[in-house]
Amino acid sequence: MGFLELVEKRESCRSFLRDPVERGKIERCLEAARLAPSACNGQPWRFVVVESEPLKSTLAERAFSGIHKMNAFAKEAPVLVAVVTLPTRAAATFAGLFRRFSYPLIDIGIACEHFVLQAAEEGLGTCWLGWFDDKPVGNLIGLGFREKVHVLLAVGYGKDKRPAAKMRKPLREMSEYR
Amino acid sequence: MGFLELVEKRESCRSFLRDPVERGKIERCLEAARLAPSACNGQPWRFVVVESEPLKSTLAERAFSGIHKMNAFAKEAPVLVAVVTLPTRAAATFAGLFRRFSYPLIDIGIACEHFVLQAAEEGLGTCWLGWFDDKPVGNLIGLGFREKVHVLLAVGYGKDKRPAAKMRKPLREMSEYR
Repeated sequence: MGFLELVEKRESCRSFLRDPVERGKIERCLEAARLAPSACNGQPWRFVVVESEPLKSTLAERAFSGIHKMNAFAKEAPVLVAVVTLPTRAAATFAGLFRRFSYPLIDIGIACEHFVLQAAEEGLGTCWLGWFDDKPVGNLIGLGFREKVHVLLAVGYGKDKRPAAKMRKPLREMSEYR
Repeated sequence: MGFLELVEKRESCRSFLRDPVERGKIERCLEAARLAPSACNGQPWRFVVVESEPLKSTLAERAFSGIHKMNAFAKEAPVLVAVVTLPTRAAATFAGLFRRFSYPLIDIGIACEHFVLQAAEEGLGTCWLGWFDDKPVGNLIGLGFREKVHVLLAVGYGKDKRPAAKMRKPLREMSEYR
């Protein structure tokens, strides 16, 4: 499968089967994330794979309630990965202060996308989640100084097998040559 | 080539040949970026492919001088892609204000990584650049309201053909099961 095919195949899965996910598959997703590039090679991430009960259900219940209910579908996923953003290296922190943006957020984007693309290759469904209550999530998994959970990834076997067409801006609207 | 092989192959290229890059290859890199997921499908990006002279050299000269000289190697690259971060959709902007981080930075991470992974598949070398003078870059390409250039991508054929071993934290240091 070429990379563009894999990109086509990856899509947000919002309906999961109860089937458990093989450990070997998760390990390869983690390996893909591990090898991701990051600013100054800071690797400002930690992947906490939550799969055992009752932790998984407790975390899902607290993360996706109230104003975060819109993502309640993720409670069905057999695996939730809490992606912890770590403070990065001094050089990248300084550059970020100077340029006024957070390099680790870009790094988290890269590493998580490696994870979900590998998952797509493994036949797994995933969904990026950025809208959840991060306080109980942090309390349940335990966070260190200046650590945050910006992203959760729902992982499992999807009920729908065929990817839907992607709704995106046309190529010439999002790119140009100079 | 499996996805993990592609991830191994992608590396930061800091030494470019002068050979021009075929338009078809750049188009497929843009297509991979176009299909990237983003918060609320906001697609908050615009890819400006700078390849013609004297613009490319002027942009490189101004971006990588003074305190940004450390990335002067990128002046050699035949193509520089200015990745413009756009304001995203209202829902993602609101969620970002609520959660106190910028969703578009994560989105930019994803879309740019799609670009460089497709480039690796095409046999091209790339380098993510987050340290450059963004003011002249913005002036040269022209920015709209609330648009920023957080990332430049250097693209070309690399002088080194074989990927080096990646220096990363071990798998069990960056991940755990619960």
